[in-house]
Amino acid sequence: MENLIVQKYGGTSVANAERIMHVAKTVSDTYKKGKRVVVVVSAQGHTTDRLVEKARGISSDSNRRELDMLLVTGEQQSAALMAMALQSLGHDAVSLNAAQVGIEATSVHGNAQIKRIRTARLTEELEKGRIVVVAGFQGINRFGDMTTLGRGASDTTAVALAAVLEAELCEIYTDVDGIYTVDPRIVPTAKKLDVISYDDMLELASSGAGVLHNRAVEMAKRYRVNLVLRSSMSEIPGTLIKEATEVERLAVSGIAIDRNVARISVTGLEDKPGVAYSIFDPLAKGKLNVDVILLSVGEGEKRDYCFTVHKQEMGLACEILEQNKEKIGYDTLITDENLAKLTIVGAGMANNAGVASTMFEALYECGVNIETICTSEIKITVLIDQRHITKAAKAVHDKFEPMFSKDYTQTEDA
Amino acid sequence: MENLIVQKYGGTSVANAERIMHVAKTVSDTYKKGKRVVVVVSAQGHTTDRLVEKARGISSDSNRRELDMLLVTGEQQSAALMAMALQSLGHDAVSLNAAQVGIEATSVHGNAQIKRIRTARLTEELEKGRIVVVAGFQGINRFGDMTTLGRGASDTTAVALAAVLEAELCEIYTDVDGIYTVDPRIVPTAKKLDVISYDDMLELASSGAGVLHNRAVEMAKRYRVNLVLRSSMSEIPGTLIKEATEVERLAVSGIAIDRNVARISVTGLEDKPGVAYSIFDPLAKGKLNVDVILLSVGEGEKRDYCFTVHKQEMGLACEILEQNKEKIGYDTLITDENLAKLTIVGAGMANNAGVASTMFEALYECGVNIETICTSEIKITVLIDQRHITKAAKAVHDKFEPMFSKDYTQTEDA
Repeated sequence: MENLIVQKYGGTSVANAERIMHVAKTVSDTYKKGKRVVVVVSAQGHTTDRLVEKARGISSDSNRRELDMLLVTGEQQSAALMAMALQSLGHDAVSLNAAQVGIEATSVHGNAQIKRIRTARLTEELEKGRIVVVAGFQGINRFGDMTTLGRGASDTTAVALAAVLEAELCEIYTDVDGIYTVDPRIVPTAKKLDVISYDDMLELASSGAGVLHNRAVEMAKRYRVNLVLRSSMSEIPGTLIKEATEVERLAVSGIAIDRNVARISVTGLEDKPGVAYSIFDPLAKGKLNVDVILLSVGEGEKRDYCFTVHKQEMGLACEILEQNKEKIGYDTLITDENLAKLTIVGAGMANNAGVASTMFEALYECGVNIETICTSEIKITVLIDQRHITKAAKAVHDKFEPMFSKDYTQTEDA
Repeated sequence: MENLIVQKYGGTSVANAERIMHVAKTVSDTYKKGKRVVVVVSAQGHTTDRLVEKARGISSDSNRRELDMLLVTGEQQSAALMAMALQSLGHDAVSLNAAQVGIEATSVHGNAQIKRIRTARLTEELEKGRIVVVAGFQGINRFGDMTTLGRGASDTTAVALAAVLEAELCEIYTDVDGIYTVDPRIVPTAKKLDVISYDDMLELASSGAGVLHNRAVEMAKRYRVNLVLRSSMSEIPGTLIKEATEVERLAVSGIAIDRNVARISVTGLEDKPGVAYSIFDPLAKGKLNVDVILLSVGEGEKRDYCFTVHKQEMGLACEILEQNKEKIGYDTLITDENLAKLTIVGAGMANNAGVASTMFEALYECGVNIETICTSEIKITVLIDQRHITKAAKAVHDKFEPMFSKDYTQTEDA
């Protein structure tokens, strides 16, 4: 649809009446520029946390279908309030929940994926000149039950809507003014990026830079949605996330820090086919997201696997592995919660042999020991003692500063 | 459906986790007796009021469609929490909102009426042995938009479900243990009724006895639903509301008190056809519920109409009348907010000429002046100075006490 902009506002941006009115004015300004607008909202402030607490007050292990039924109300409330705010500014606005839009998703409660979005109601409302406010974070499965798309997934709702409606732009409004080369709260010399490629953003998002939901970036990449991350509190342009060009690939984009890491080592495994499957299949069935996976380069008969999970999921991961101990056939589980993850990301890394060694040099110079290394074509991740993460991030960022200065603004007209 | 009981729990009964668990145990006990159970819940405690406040924080005059979209989340939350509580007791339970059940209603946001209830999903879930928890107070219109059925209308949801599912009983659990001859907080000698007829209950409910939503009673009467009002906090049997027999009609059932009354007098009207229509049609279009209507028995050319509305709707009513002043052609509007309404109800009243005079005698004896009188076949309503309402209620109740003692327990086997 021509002239269509999808704007997503997070929980902080809609936390109270005053902020909702502020957002409504931003939406109104966009509309007055001749744009059609679809607004996606998250639940207000800490609403989702409070609802989770309510559920825990009833049962420590709530049924996920019912939990979703409870949680989706938060976004529906925000959507209704936002529509009222737009109406108070004289606009014709309408709020829609996932069932009303027809956001069809899988049945994995708490972590569903969008399968299809019906566009009939949306286009009908937009063609009436209405501003449509959609409750983020939610879908319906084929039985008509409410499902949620995972924490932070309102970003994904926004990108998916931008994709199916062929919007010219999807703007994610948040409490930071763009993507930085590293978390500026930790490294004050961090630089804001004007442009970043989907791939680099994906690695940053996946590596713990919490500003954008990684499924949202994946989807933006797949459907070529022009994505902008910007602040709802300021006029600063933000960071544009788009397809990379060859020139851009030379740069190192940024550094991600993740403190929410626990490492689990599974030791004394036989060196035979099927072992990895026996470990990771039950974890996957338990809906656990496993990150960095390493297999020891053993000489003898026995080998060790180690991998990382979110800290709050370590208990569940160990429980699942203990239940499958006989089938997997391991000796012991060793856990470590005192680690942090430091990742540098850059689409040009594959063509630049010096990147890894530059990173290791920086860590060596500041005296930080590397526990584990894991690399991909466009990123290098190290696990280090979490007490040293600030020092390490600063050292690595300083080391790469000359590369950051070759940022995309020099080669892009965006 | 055989062996089916519909139980409705109000906001106080589900106000916190502890109370929800208490209700879940009551539901569980019913299920264990071999019954199928549909549970209807209201929003927790003051949730609806808080949501209305939120809307007012955005706009003093919220769009009613959006207000409904906001308000329905309260009941959905309660339903999800109740399903979790039942699951924690080992039951298979599922919560459904109005869209999922298919509770089709009119589009009058804030005061919609149920048109039809689809039973496919309900019977499917019940036949799986599940306890079904339905979010009360809500419906969907033909566009799939959420509508609400008016404050207190979760009772109506419960009765409507009991009607379409042909339940053997509909139990309304509340914070009082039954229907009393008069509000026991005002008249301590009030007696609890074991049985009352639909008609008498309807008059009591319509006259301000706030225990049951009058549309719920109307619907129960129309579809012959056996309705019980009882306390969720005690084992006391409650009051059964059912079809009256001839014998029962001899009794005076109870006394209703309503302090939420404002009287509006429209004076100096011409005495010609169409005047009443010109007054009450715009009020009806403004969705105002007008109660007691009186036309002065004038001798001269001009006549006066007076009627009562809820206090909070007086401003709106006057506004509407002023907008239509020319069309109606009246002199002045006179308002009085210092009145209260006292009503005695009894299906047998029509055959008992002495009832009205007994009431007037009681009021005369305690020195209370009657401002307005309005009678129907089964009730007598007087408007009096609200400062005297307690004194008046006691005097009238004492006077009728011998009639209350001929209550239904003597003639009923219920």
